[in-house]
Amino acid sequence: MTAVADTPATSTLRDGAFGNARSLVCRECSHEVELGPHYACPECFGPLEVAYDFPQVTRAEIEAGPRNIWRYKALLPVPTDIEQSPNTEPGFTRLLRADNLARELGIDTLWVKDDSTNPTNSFKDRVVACALSAARELDAKVFACPSTGNLANAVAAAGARAGIRTVVFIPSNLEQPKQVNSAIFTENLVAVNGNYDDVNKLASEIAGEEDGWAFVNVNVRPFYAEGSKTLGYEIAEQLGWRLPDQIVIPVASGSQLTKVDKSFQELIKLGLVEDKPYKIFGAQATGCSPVSVAFKGGTDAIRPVKPDTIAKSLAIGNPADGIYVLDICRRSGGAVEDITDDEVRDGIVLLARTEGIFTETAGGTTVGVLKKLVETGQLDTTLETVVINTGHGLKTLDAISDRVGPAATIEPSYSAFTAANIV
Amino acid sequence: MTAVADTPATSTLRDGAFGNARSLVCRECSHEVELGPHYACPECFGPLEVAYDFPQVTRAEIEAGPRNIWRYKALLPVPTDIEQSPNTEPGFTRLLRADNLARELGIDTLWVKDDSTNPTNSFKDRVVACALSAARELDAKVFACPSTGNLANAVAAAGARAGIRTVVFIPSNLEQPKQVNSAIFTENLVAVNGNYDDVNKLASEIAGEEDGWAFVNVNVRPFYAEGSKTLGYEIAEQLGWRLPDQIVIPVASGSQLTKVDKSFQELIKLGLVEDKPYKIFGAQATGCSPVSVAFKGGTDAIRPVKPDTIAKSLAIGNPADGIYVLDICRRSGGAVEDITDDEVRDGIVLLARTEGIFTETAGGTTVGVLKKLVETGQLDTTLETVVINTGHGLKTLDAISDRVGPAATIEPSYSAFTAANIV
Repeated sequence: MTAVADTPATSTLRDGAFGNARSLVCRECSHEVELGPHYACPECFGPLEVAYDFPQVTRAEIEAGPRNIWRYKALLPVPTDIEQSPNTEPGFTRLLRADNLARELGIDTLWVKDDSTNPTNSFKDRVVACALSAARELDAKVFACPSTGNLANAVAAAGARAGIRTVVFIPSNLEQPKQVNSAIFTENLVAVNGNYDDVNKLASEIAGEEDGWAFVNVNVRPFYAEGSKTLGYEIAEQLGWRLPDQIVIPVASGSQLTKVDKSFQELIKLGLVEDKPYKIFGAQATGCSPVSVAFKGGTDAIRPVKPDTIAKSLAIGNPADGIYVLDICRRSGGAVEDITDDEVRDGIVLLARTEGIFTETAGGTTVGVLKKLVETGQLDTTLETVVINTGHGLKTLDAISDRVGPAATIEPSYSAFTAANIV
Repeated sequence: MTAVADTPATSTLRDGAFGNARSLVCRECSHEVELGPHYACPECFGPLEVAYDFPQVTRAEIEAGPRNIWRYKALLPVPTDIEQSPNTEPGFTRLLRADNLARELGIDTLWVKDDSTNPTNSFKDRVVACALSAARELDAKVFACPSTGNLANAVAAAGARAGIRTVVFIPSNLEQPKQVNSAIFTENLVAVNGNYDDVNKLASEIAGEEDGWAFVNVNVRPFYAEGSKTLGYEIAEQLGWRLPDQIVIPVASGSQLTKVDKSFQELIKLGLVEDKPYKIFGAQATGCSPVSVAFKGGTDAIRPVKPDTIAKSLAIGNPADGIYVLDICRRSGGAVEDITDDEVRDGIVLLARTEGIFTETAGGTTVGVLKKLVETGQLDTTLETVVINTGHGLKTLDAISDRVGPAATIEPSYSAFTAANIV
């Protein structure tokens, strides 16, 4: 279970290796464990999460920081000199006022947080940057992940820039463009004959057998997951140090949604934003909607499913944080909703045509769910709303390529142009 | 020649429509023309360029501005309320310290200006944002361009967000992914049976025949081109209000290189940076290297060529600003150099493996030329150097897809993994 450091125990950690983080605490039984390459509670096997002893942090200190996620370093499990270590410098992406989309949907005030402009074009650059810091502090020899797409790109790119040996495991039947987008960064792309579950199991096995491997989403997962908090911090800061009234977030494992909630709570506790209610909504594709099904059924029992949807980056059939998503969405007055693959495609086109943003299927899901929440009266259209776009459409071209194309094909002459009646 | 406004002459322009711009001035004969949809000198047919009466501008004013190109609005031909008009908010992209690449090439201090993280993943979002402002102020009904790639994406996205009717013309044999990446944003993608020259000619014909069309790279080109200055402003600001000693820039039409030089000169004149010498280097692919050939031949006569290179976004055989590129590179002590397509591919892989940035063929050209400039002793490796990455590798996957791939394909077992000897 340790893998990163069987020999160099946490006693060899340098002072401040994890910043203001105090310990790892179990989400289920609150048992505390020392900071290190641990991810499951030794008492109850519940998931471990980073806990902090925050100092006083001011808006001015944050605003004086770099234009990337390290402006929030005091709130992350990273050392104070983190900017000195090479990384891809993700974050501080656009928060765009989306008046066209708002008008189309009948919402008064809407914003899109656009994470498709991150270094490798998805929000995964945020979490990988935090995992890389942990790997470095834990003296890992190898930086690795199992993945089918965005995570592989982010790990391979960050590893290249950091100069750490990087190994990325993918299913061997993955589309060639996605392979290229990881192989460009690393010599060690390993194709595995099997599906994603097989690749994931192999990664866990290697993590258990080998010393010095940091698998970002396995044995350094508690540090990795904290990176998603920066999405929430940025939204609040970009709104002028204010929380939105409502926010719609895609749900795969559910980690991102829970971390955005955590970030809002931290900002309130630190006095960086005013305490106010906010509603959190989760978005899934119907072909992989175990959390949405449980929400609608009024139950806490999430039944694992076998995913069947074009929204592959959301296709986690047994979401580890699903139970916490249910709790947050219920407690905050939000909801979890799901839409069909055709509605996912509609969502991609809708966002592109109204706001000039080309999102991947996950973003199509989130925008489509936003639309459905309005239509079903679950979302209050008079409240300020934020929707998160987690990735780039260039990575999932196949999903949309038969839906859009030329309006006309003409000969190269003015008369042919006028005859075509384009405008 | 006017097209945008045959009827609404410049007399109907609102006050401050073009900010601190004073007029359009001919680069050849210095004749001045009033601001409007003009691009060629009525006296000598030379190219027109925006001239300004700048007020005093301070670093503090700029730093207090938005985190996009509009922080430099006082130095651009745009109104003071430009942030209020919907646009894609491009710019303020990463300037990354590239120590790994520097070490590999034997350069002391190297930075990469990474424009692949712009809204549609190329520097074209900068110029299109300025063209959109001009189109709006000139009361254009249609926002248009002929293009084979990056420009089409940027125009279609910006037009969607601005809510202006947008028409994009492309060669009908363009690869489907590039078609999708424009068609996603606009209903009016027009495929033309012919090559890019045919499409371009058709665009000029439409611009001449129709009223109210703003072709970004034809009749509003002087305003459009000014957007490239923001690359230079940002580099200087991100270096701490300091000019680099050397900068390497790709050359297609040559406009970007001349505008970066113009931006540096403006910053010096405004007292925003210290006056100091800097060398500018131009990068071309050998298969389309008319400027490099003229530079090496010691002549001002640029002989048009028929492009034959994988660096398609640089494939302009008769570059309009080539003569100015020659002048700037010679005067500043720089050079223009070119490399083969294989070296372009090597450049793409080199940047990815060292710095975790996936560039398109244009960026591969620039990095490859940087390498050649070092090897041939044309670049001083002791001087601080910046290299510009203008676009994203996801748009030119074909160029590289047979060069990178999995290191191994294995069965999903730990024994298969160890047998493969990956690390």
